[in-house]
Amino acid sequence: MPHKTFRYEQVISKIEETISGLQLQPGDKVPSVRKVSEELKVSLTTVKQAYGILEAKGAIVSRPGSGFYINTFTKSIIKRTAVESYIPLPEFIEVNTMAAAMVKNTAKYSVINFSSLAPANEYLPISRINKVMQASIKEERNIFQYSFLEGHPRLIKQIALHTFDWKHSIKQDEILITNGCMEAISLCLEAITKPGDIVAIESPAYAGVLQCLESKGLKALGISVDPFTGLNLDELETALAANKVAACLFMPVCQNPYGCAMPEENKIRMVKLLGELNIPLIEDDALGELSYDKTRPLPAKAYDTYDNVLFCSSFSKSLMPGFRIGWVTAGKYQAQIERLKFAENISTNGLLQDTIGRFLETGEYNAHIKKLRQFAQAQTTRYRNAILEYFPDDVKISVPAGGYSLWVELPENVNALELQREALKFGIGFCPGQIFSASKHYQNFMRINCCPLWSTKIEESLKTLGKLVKSILQKTASVIPVHGLDASATQILL
Amino acid sequence: MPHKTFRYEQVISKIEETISGLQLQPGDKVPSVRKVSEELKVSLTTVKQAYGILEAKGAIVSRPGSGFYINTFTKSIIKRTAVESYIPLPEFIEVNTMAAAMVKNTAKYSVINFSSLAPANEYLPISRINKVMQASIKEERNIFQYSFLEGHPRLIKQIALHTFDWKHSIKQDEILITNGCMEAISLCLEAITKPGDIVAIESPAYAGVLQCLESKGLKALGISVDPFTGLNLDELETALAANKVAACLFMPVCQNPYGCAMPEENKIRMVKLLGELNIPLIEDDALGELSYDKTRPLPAKAYDTYDNVLFCSSFSKSLMPGFRIGWVTAGKYQAQIERLKFAENISTNGLLQDTIGRFLETGEYNAHIKKLRQFAQAQTTRYRNAILEYFPDDVKISVPAGGYSLWVELPENVNALELQREALKFGIGFCPGQIFSASKHYQNFMRINCCPLWSTKIEESLKTLGKLVKSILQKTASVIPVHGLDASATQILL
Repeated sequence: MPHKTFRYEQVISKIEETISGLQLQPGDKVPSVRKVSEELKVSLTTVKQAYGILEAKGAIVSRPGSGFYINTFTKSIIKRTAVESYIPLPEFIEVNTMAAAMVKNTAKYSVINFSSLAPANEYLPISRINKVMQASIKEERNIFQYSFLEGHPRLIKQIALHTFDWKHSIKQDEILITNGCMEAISLCLEAITKPGDIVAIESPAYAGVLQCLESKGLKALGISVDPFTGLNLDELETALAANKVAACLFMPVCQNPYGCAMPEENKIRMVKLLGELNIPLIEDDALGELSYDKTRPLPAKAYDTYDNVLFCSSFSKSLMPGFRIGWVTAGKYQAQIERLKFAENISTNGLLQDTIGRFLETGEYNAHIKKLRQFAQAQTTRYRNAILEYFPDDVKISVPAGGYSLWVELPENVNALELQREALKFGIGFCPGQIFSASKHYQNFMRINCCPLWSTKIEESLKTLGKLVKSILQKTASVIPVHGLDASATQILL
Repeated sequence: MPHKTFRYEQVISKIEETISGLQLQPGDKVPSVRKVSEELKVSLTTVKQAYGILEAKGAIVSRPGSGFYINTFTKSIIKRTAVESYIPLPEFIEVNTMAAAMVKNTAKYSVINFSSLAPANEYLPISRINKVMQASIKEERNIFQYSFLEGHPRLIKQIALHTFDWKHSIKQDEILITNGCMEAISLCLEAITKPGDIVAIESPAYAGVLQCLESKGLKALGISVDPFTGLNLDELETALAANKVAACLFMPVCQNPYGCAMPEENKIRMVKLLGELNIPLIEDDALGELSYDKTRPLPAKAYDTYDNVLFCSSFSKSLMPGFRIGWVTAGKYQAQIERLKFAENISTNGLLQDTIGRFLETGEYNAHIKKLRQFAQAQTTRYRNAILEYFPDDVKISVPAGGYSLWVELPENVNALELQREALKFGIGFCPGQIFSASKHYQNFMRINCCPLWSTKIEESLKTLGKLVKSILQKTASVIPVHGLDASATQILL
């Protein structure tokens, strides 16, 4: 399968050559976008895109109002996961029991929680939300009665408006409100698969998706993820040719745990590939709003001329985590998904829907999201630097283009489950790599969500984690590493 | 299978003899409980129970503070459904598409809605709820963050306390909060069945349950319901002997649509029967709190010494319909159900849980429920009388012992779907009998929910319905009745 070469990739090479020619050092300023545009005779947009990718790759960092600088920490950027050469095979998953136990234990025992993925209280517009909620209670006569099956009209209208700049904007009657993005995904899977079917997912993938597949008796086919350009499309093509895949489930924008985003060209290629093969794509956009770009990248759904993308999104990561308000627009599968929703829990609560609808009506959402993106980027940068400082030298860390997560590769003989057990003794919670794999990979990986507001306490906790990693390293220097999950995995946590 | 004779049934016969001997007429006062107790030499409790049953049967009515009177409308009481002689066979269901379309259309076109089952706004403690919600927002630092997987501790504690007078009270760690009772039921079905399995249900059954079975590819085995004593246990025994039943799903207290409650002895017999056969019982208690008795009858779960009852309940019918807060306690299946909940939508929103928890803490819930029960009984009585007045003479109506529903048997050649289509033209919505059957029965039945507060407008709507029934009767006098559902069923509604 020939690898597609994109225009901005050529530009990136030229920029890299320029930087190399200038012998720039970490911390040095790089030539401005305008200057490069003039020198290379390419449009400003293309150079901006190239700089964006270089930034996402961690090669450069932007300082608002000042331009781009060579990153101080380029050496420790995660390149590709340890399973690069892995040939995907569909497998049943056994992660559910462990993950549920973990969440319960982390909630119970952790004081510093790096496993929950949600904006900190300080970044939630609580007083504004409360104000519009009061208005809803006062003005909506039937707000305490059952809501409409498809959702509250005010929220649905606002969501439709929010998609107006997509190439194919979503109509109001194409939207169903759900109990968060996870319910949207779960309904999509129920609508288009049956037990035993194969679903192509990312590797690593969001643990919740793995649990959902497991609970429905579905097989997972893990497709590797490039830390910077997301899903490996060549690998996907090969895998689809070799397997009867019932559905794909990917996060094209702000992948979890990598935080990477697929280039526009890749999204277009993916939508075309799956559309022509008539394999439905469930697009998990839970974190899409949190891209560090000024405007969020378009979802794959925006390119969907095949009516083949089931788009799932949510306000959990961008506005109110605890409200559990998400939505789905599923093209030709919409009616079926509505019926499933109705059969499973009738409808979503109306008050919190109307509240979000009213908040969106105020027009404050865009400013809120902008602030949140800056916060998320600042947090991940700070956490990243601290991990680089306090963890062993050979630790590798992703450079997210969005979201709150860092995907951390520990030395090979550190078992993240053991680290988790030790960390919980200090009240520190995080997700071990194992729960991001359908194939018992990533045992020496961990996901750190940079959600708790940066403080000396957070810094101390990351320092403690670093020390624990080092002590496990010393201890296991002469011991065979423990691979995968075993029956005692959940016990470890108790 | 010998039919069990219960002590209170003998007492009932004696009371009926006494009433007959006294030649009492509709509207006459019947002998007091104390007097009957003395005359028949049975305990006050037993006589009270017997009078309760007679009241449930519609033979007598109580007037608070004044005693019992012969009912004016005894002649039109529904005795047994038209499918009495029906031998149950497991069948796949095809009601989902129709029911979902109906709900959408009814919500859209009906002005007077007799299909929604929820207390009227006038009976919701909205200002109290709003007050405790404000306290929650003020006092609970993390109320806008993801809630605990199992639910908010405050609500869980209050629910556990609420079950303290059950024979086996529920412990806090045995409770999972769900998006309403329907999600609880859906999770239970997922935990204990697989597609193609047979589930014994009531006939008629709540339409939502039928849809849920259909969406999971389960077969339904309809067991007939006695309008006064609920599930026919002899028929259940026979059906269980003849079929490999994976689970049972019943409403022992306040059955939907009948509103009947199983006598204590029957619940005990049912729990024992299913416990010994090791067939799990999903108990749908969505309406259990709305028994017209002074104290609610115990659920079957209260007698569950087999750890075999999966009890599902909700605050939708008793407190806040739109909050979508329910709960499940599922004995040995609890951990599995928790994992499914986590995999499908992570957790239920915390704010509305804490709000209900705080309302329960105030101790006002019991007074609220008492008021609601009286309201429900007053409403069903008024609606019932109006239907008797305005519908054709041979219409039969259930006499509920709880809840808001009346189950109405129309003349045989009235198709409830046609009636529904005609009624929607006048802005009147109700549920046709067809959606309460797994076997295309009840085409001449309708469920009227007596939720909208009684008014001349309601009376006029029931009058209009009566006229429509009569006009269909005239029209169809010479036409072969339409049976069951057909492909155009959903079209009719548009």
